[in-house]
Amino acid sequence: MSIRVFAPATVANVACGYDVLGLALGQPGDEVIIKKSDKAGVRITEITGDDGRLPTDPLKNTVGISVIKYLEAIGAKEQGLEITLHKKMPFGSGLGSSAASTVAGVFAANELLGKPLTQENLLPFAMEGERVACGSAHADNVAPALYGGIVLIRSYKPLDVIKLPVPSELYVTVVHPHIEVATKDARQILKSNISFQRAIEQWGNVGGLVAGLYQEDYDLISRSLKDVVVEPVRSILIPGFESVKQAALDNGALGGSISGSGPSIFSLCKGEEIAGQVAEAKRKAFSEIGIHCDVYVSPVNQAGPIVLD
Amino acid sequence: MSIRVFAPATVANVACGYDVLGLALGQPGDEVIIKKSDKAGVRITEITGDDGRLPTDPLKNTVGISVIKYLEAIGAKEQGLEITLHKKMPFGSGLGSSAASTVAGVFAANELLGKPLTQENLLPFAMEGERVACGSAHADNVAPALYGGIVLIRSYKPLDVIKLPVPSELYVTVVHPHIEVATKDARQILKSNISFQRAIEQWGNVGGLVAGLYQEDYDLISRSLKDVVVEPVRSILIPGFESVKQAALDNGALGGSISGSGPSIFSLCKGEEIAGQVAEAKRKAFSEIGIHCDVYVSPVNQAGPIVLD
Repeated sequence: MSIRVFAPATVANVACGYDVLGLALGQPGDEVIIKKSDKAGVRITEITGDDGRLPTDPLKNTVGISVIKYLEAIGAKEQGLEITLHKKMPFGSGLGSSAASTVAGVFAANELLGKPLTQENLLPFAMEGERVACGSAHADNVAPALYGGIVLIRSYKPLDVIKLPVPSELYVTVVHPHIEVATKDARQILKSNISFQRAIEQWGNVGGLVAGLYQEDYDLISRSLKDVVVEPVRSILIPGFESVKQAALDNGALGGSISGSGPSIFSLCKGEEIAGQVAEAKRKAFSEIGIHCDVYVSPVNQAGPIVLD
Repeated sequence: MSIRVFAPATVANVACGYDVLGLALGQPGDEVIIKKSDKAGVRITEITGDDGRLPTDPLKNTVGISVIKYLEAIGAKEQGLEITLHKKMPFGSGLGSSAASTVAGVFAANELLGKPLTQENLLPFAMEGERVACGSAHADNVAPALYGGIVLIRSYKPLDVIKLPVPSELYVTVVHPHIEVATKDARQILKSNISFQRAIEQWGNVGGLVAGLYQEDYDLISRSLKDVVVEPVRSILIPGFESVKQAALDNGALGGSISGSGPSIFSLCKGEEIAGQVAEAKRKAFSEIGIHCDVYVSPVNQAGPIVLD
């Protein structure tokens, strides 16, 4: 008895919402296959697509850890599970690679065992996986990967996640330049204090973006997609950032910023046609400085993880 | 030919939304009477209820300044206007006293002159009045006083004000303790840098509050009504703050905080009955430490300024 699950890549922060906003993409994402086993405990039997970089020791692997925590919570520590992980998205891309794997794993385990927990209640276990991957239990990738759509993490203590509405014509384009920025470096570059004035601008924009989503007001969404706190610091780690961002705006993007801790750059767009043009413009801008990119275009993924077979 | 206008008191900040959120009260408020005159220019002929504290020189008076700026903008510098101001609300209360006068004045002038500008377009002139009163052109009192309802000032440069929905059972209670906190002191106590972690909590709550208003989700509104940045600093200027706040919560308030720069304390409540109990509990808590209060209970004022006759 086995199950195969896909969980999507995600864009954390969404410009103004550092640590509190995230959204799910249609592609890329990871696949996890989980099989019941007579031998007690969680084993990772195979990992593909990782170039040998991920540990197969379940206690050191984000998927392993989160499935183990999940089994403990439902009182099924002795359940035997064999996990296969197919990495189908890049590492260190700022697209929530570890979150996609972790959410796929926990969701698959819960489905396989007859859904003892609701999908929403799987979040704490997926966050444990993030703690292994990033050093802290952030939710801005795992929450949208698990819930789908656009989510607001209003609070971490206690955890309070709100699913926001997704305007019908909203598309996301992501370009992933082939350079690497480690999440830990991207976090360390940030200071522990920020300008009060910039913080006020930021929470004005968070309020504006949330209002824009409820009102399906693309202009308001566009005006609110600004990050005056983190982007000015982190963008120096991404060669060509300003010209790529400008190319997106010049081609009709509503706005955008660094995806998570980068180096991927996302844009929100109204409609598929503009999204395609924006993606191509960003690819071209990176290409002009000799950087090759992967490009992804999709509506916001409302489903989150899905059972493939 | 004359007109008499009422404009309401307002609650700026609304807990989490320092400088970006504000709402209008039913009461108290100020009244302005404006009369056309054959003698060119703006004159303030009478001010009542101010104990002689407000200047009648129109260039030094918030109402005078904003009406003069308004006349300049519509190309009617030579228009003669005589202004009477009836202060019907306390100074230094944190309830937007100067904003109520200013909005009443500009609105009255515009009505009297046949509405050459829309109500929304009066905002920059009212903000000029705030610059005279507070030293800077804040909008979190004048915008809700002028627009009515609950407003988000997404941005100051450029000015971008969004009217948010008001859940049907939302009531506001305000207690104004008879102590005085000057707006300038309340601003000076704040630092120019804040903790990044607290800023993140704050913008999570701004997002949550905006979402709660759209969803009419009183629980979410309640969870989001937290100020972890300004209240911890400013509340030390208000004797009894913690016990008054606790009394409000114990009696069913959704939440609340300092109104503007204080010392008034507002609470949002679901329904008129709870609002009444909360107001009484706050009054009692202040009274126990020997501080007398004025108490106001009303739904959010959706109208803003109104013509009385």
